[in-house]
Amino acid sequence: MSTDRHPATVYLSASDMIRLVRRKGLSACIAGVAGRIEREFLRWHEFDKSARLACHSPVGVIELMPIADASRFAFKYVNGHPGNHRHGLPTVMAFGVLADVATGAPRLLSELTLTTAIRTAAMSAVAARRLARPDSRRMALIGNGAQSEFQALALRDLVGIRELRLFDIDPAASAKLAANLAGQGLELRRCASVAEAVRGADIVTTVTADKRNATILSAAMIEPGMHINAVGGDCPGKTELHPGVLEAAAVFVEYEPQSRLEGDIQQMPADFPVTELWQVLEGRHPGRRDARQVTVFDSVGFALEDHAALTFMGETAAELGIGELIELVPRTADPKDLFGLLRDEPQAPARRAAATVADGCMSAAA
Amino acid sequence: MSTDRHPATVYLSASDMIRLVRRKGLSACIAGVAGRIEREFLRWHEFDKSARLACHSPVGVIELMPIADASRFAFKYVNGHPGNHRHGLPTVMAFGVLADVATGAPRLLSELTLTTAIRTAAMSAVAARRLARPDSRRMALIGNGAQSEFQALALRDLVGIRELRLFDIDPAASAKLAANLAGQGLELRRCASVAEAVRGADIVTTVTADKRNATILSAAMIEPGMHINAVGGDCPGKTELHPGVLEAAAVFVEYEPQSRLEGDIQQMPADFPVTELWQVLEGRHPGRRDARQVTVFDSVGFALEDHAALTFMGETAAELGIGELIELVPRTADPKDLFGLLRDEPQAPARRAAATVADGCMSAAA
Repeated sequence: MSTDRHPATVYLSASDMIRLVRRKGLSACIAGVAGRIEREFLRWHEFDKSARLACHSPVGVIELMPIADASRFAFKYVNGHPGNHRHGLPTVMAFGVLADVATGAPRLLSELTLTTAIRTAAMSAVAARRLARPDSRRMALIGNGAQSEFQALALRDLVGIRELRLFDIDPAASAKLAANLAGQGLELRRCASVAEAVRGADIVTTVTADKRNATILSAAMIEPGMHINAVGGDCPGKTELHPGVLEAAAVFVEYEPQSRLEGDIQQMPADFPVTELWQVLEGRHPGRRDARQVTVFDSVGFALEDHAALTFMGETAAELGIGELIELVPRTADPKDLFGLLRDEPQAPARRAAATVADGCMSAAA
Repeated sequence: MSTDRHPATVYLSASDMIRLVRRKGLSACIAGVAGRIEREFLRWHEFDKSARLACHSPVGVIELMPIADASRFAFKYVNGHPGNHRHGLPTVMAFGVLADVATGAPRLLSELTLTTAIRTAAMSAVAARRLARPDSRRMALIGNGAQSEFQALALRDLVGIRELRLFDIDPAASAKLAANLAGQGLELRRCASVAEAVRGADIVTTVTADKRNATILSAAMIEPGMHINAVGGDCPGKTELHPGVLEAAAVFVEYEPQSRLEGDIQQMPADFPVTELWQVLEGRHPGRRDARQVTVFDSVGFALEDHAALTFMGETAAELGIGELIELVPRTADPKDLFGLLRDEPQAPARRAAATVADGCMSAAA
């Protein structure tokens, strides 16, 4: 049968993704994903959207996040297990798939652990670019774990942050973050408390992992004109902001039905006013009203961001010749004869470096 | 870091699965999956169940089917595109994952196209063993596509079927089925109509692909004592039985909330009586009442069957040393230092034949 009809899937492993990001450059990846997220958010009504499916256990959550437009279906598998570091595992691990809506054939299978950190930071930057004061230079970064470097660099590159105030309940995490960001053009200061880190900040990013209703930020800490980039409260029972912070702010979300369940606004009445960010990007809503308004981006992570990230990473992999073809779906001479696969001699393994099929990868991610 | 902490994932490609089924034997695989399905259905209340998430387009559907017990989360990706044969692709393609609930780490990624045909047939046999008359020998098989051989062999092995009456609107499909089943101990007869195939049958299996409200079986075709194994009606707007067939029968389903949406019973009022099959397996419900009752298994395919199939295939792969380890999730020396992966020298690729890590595979699928 022809190659066209072969339902091969491009596979990007974690090692492939590390190689891809090193070769393309982290800043270029963040900017590329941010650009793609904006493009997709401007097509908001073309997507078949749903709140993600979550499976909760006492120690964490496993989620499936599907979304589709007329041509591509995407989903991400992602967990959140705050105690995973005790097993030597990341808190958040993820992978995802892009498939053809026309046939259901899976075209790209990719790691999304590293990619989720990149897309979450890119999303934060897309929001802050519209919601923070344009002269924002100082950011407090509360929670200095696996996602914090990506937040710092995204907000440096795309929003203009030049000073960081760091705080984490684990001093080793802050030390790691400071070491990783040395020489990156950011003035860093480690702080002894959340309050100290937040004081005088233009943007406050909270990216903590604890799965409970925490009060990372109280109303007393908030100063006029601040933009709060609330990343860590993203699960029922997992919040970071005191309700008083939300009450005094203009609150923006990704996809309201999901954010009502998972965001910091889960603490608020069902009619608490929020604005979906696509409205700001499209110019229907002005975003920040004035330099003294407090804005909150109550980020939970929405499937559309993963659709955008998968598309960008798939295209970049094709461009760089990274990845390999795998046979996730059998090749059949006669698609009505699945049984025939068992009768015939086994086929030769179908592995090929994706570099040799760059066209295929391109179309996989187009 | 130690191997214990390495979140490696066992990968079973389509070629691996073909090899596995050839080496283990198709009958052994069907029987093994059927046994595992029964075992899991007897633990019905230990599973966190939900109806699958479906994304419909004019030409087909893409679904995600998650389920979890206290230790394992499983999901399947599966499509249904009746026109796929025109692209040289199977109507149904699938893959799935088993993950640890305790950490969220994905432990097994497997093709499920071939496996879905096996588990669907195994499920039909599990139901027919309880619902068909014990002396059932003749089965009508309506729809002779990719799943039909598996249905024939499962019902031969586990229910005692010896004669098959075949019908398909595509004569080439029936010819393929007849050729594939030659020498398998089944007496075959190709029929010119559904009515001819159904006449005198003990069991009627419908496994057609057309995505519409079709009337494959009408009430006039049904004879006392028949068991109807309705496999193809599994989507909103995709049914096979005339409502009159259901009205006159005792109807059994897998998981009622999903079957009300997707099964042939989608045509019936919300209070139309049905029985979940686990109740029959557990002995709470007698199943067939007498030799003249008509029984219907309104099968749609439930995530628990895939959980069972993934577990069986993972164990069998470990036993036979089939599969390989992939790096779907990055290995990190410090799980809070994802950024460090980009700073350090790239790691060597982590491919190893699963045969060298049989213990790991075992625990992956336990």
